[in-house]
Amino acid sequence: MQKSTHIPKATITRLSLYYRQLELMEFDGYRTVSSDKLAWLCQVNPAQVRKDLGYFGEFGVRGVGYDVKELQEQIKRILAINREWNLGIVGIGKLGSALLQHRNLQVRGFNCVAAFDNDPEKIGETAPLGIRIRDIEELKTAVKELNIEIGVITTPASAAQYVADLFVEADVNAILNFSPTRIQVPDCCMVENIDFTVRLDILAYKVRNEIYAKAI
Amino acid sequence: MQKSTHIPKATITRLSLYYRQLELMEFDGYRTVSSDKLAWLCQVNPAQVRKDLGYFGEFGVRGVGYDVKELQEQIKRILAINREWNLGIVGIGKLGSALLQHRNLQVRGFNCVAAFDNDPEKIGETAPLGIRIRDIEELKTAVKELNIEIGVITTPASAAQYVADLFVEADVNAILNFSPTRIQVPDCCMVENIDFTVRLDILAYKVRNEIYAKAI
Repeated sequence: MQKSTHIPKATITRLSLYYRQLELMEFDGYRTVSSDKLAWLCQVNPAQVRKDLGYFGEFGVRGVGYDVKELQEQIKRILAINREWNLGIVGIGKLGSALLQHRNLQVRGFNCVAAFDNDPEKIGETAPLGIRIRDIEELKTAVKELNIEIGVITTPASAAQYVADLFVEADVNAILNFSPTRIQVPDCCMVENIDFTVRLDILAYKVRNEIYAKAI
Repeated sequence: MQKSTHIPKATITRLSLYYRQLELMEFDGYRTVSSDKLAWLCQVNPAQVRKDLGYFGEFGVRGVGYDVKELQEQIKRILAINREWNLGIVGIGKLGSALLQHRNLQVRGFNCVAAFDNDPEKIGETAPLGIRIRDIEELKTAVKELNIEIGVITTPASAAQYVADLFVEADVNAILNFSPTRIQVPDCCMVENIDFTVRLDILAYKVRNEIYAKAI
């Protein structure tokens, strides 16, 4: 059904956002939505919505729009989130613990099945959701045993590369990196960086240079 | 000292990453660093490092490289993170609580000075760091009282727009949005979205389409 093999990452990102808006619309009782309305809600232009979906087939009905429920199912299928994914989280501090308990992950089929740390005081303890905190050195074994496909790094920056290497060695080819540094991985491994402290820096820069500058 | 007024956002993002690598290098005892090495550590090309810094002046010494400590100071000044910023967090669930306690925020001068929620059972309770959880309806008053310049949204998607409107009404012109939806704000307001569940969708897509596809 997929027409083209090269899909821009921005399209994938927007599909994920469309999906979230469709969920909200279903919750609000909507059965259909026009590309104009979906576009407005997601802050893109309507042609973009049609183009993004067009990569994967024909979904809407002219004059009616998209079926809210049906389009969710299609996007889930496209994004491969119509199945469950097992996650392993390394670094069980405040952020790692919050992620373990994050309702949105479970709801979306991202199951945190293992927690790792290198702190002897944490290893063996029970993390949120009743998950036992394992020694980081057990990562490779646990990956195989629990079928972990996505690794999550919530360690300090200084430990991130070591952890990334362990994931790669264990054949985990997808890493979500919350540590405020870039990690080096081979081409076969995909990394998404969540730099929220970087984003704060960007906001600080913009407030000073774009907002305060205008006020002067 | 700033040569040009239009600086690409990608440059600002990279400056923030350079800064983090410089911190790590200082910690490891390095006094100088070449643009080649800094570039390698940040996974960009050396010409990019020189171009990014070139927007703001001349920092390195030919044949010697950059002074690790001095360049940090310069980047802090450029990004406006050589001062403190007050943050207000709305939505004191697991993620909001983790952010309140996140060591990296305090270390970087991003002070969480207020916490808000709309849950009567939480309002009045003490959040991490000894911060009293305020009623979301007090947001406008608290923003003025505590000089909050950056708003952080960690509510469910369904509440995000309401909270964003409150921030805008209170003249908070910078928002870090952790909720998995897009918010609509006027042009005077800057938003950075931290969509980690969206990033998981992207990883799922890539693993299925790029990694498993290669393996077949």
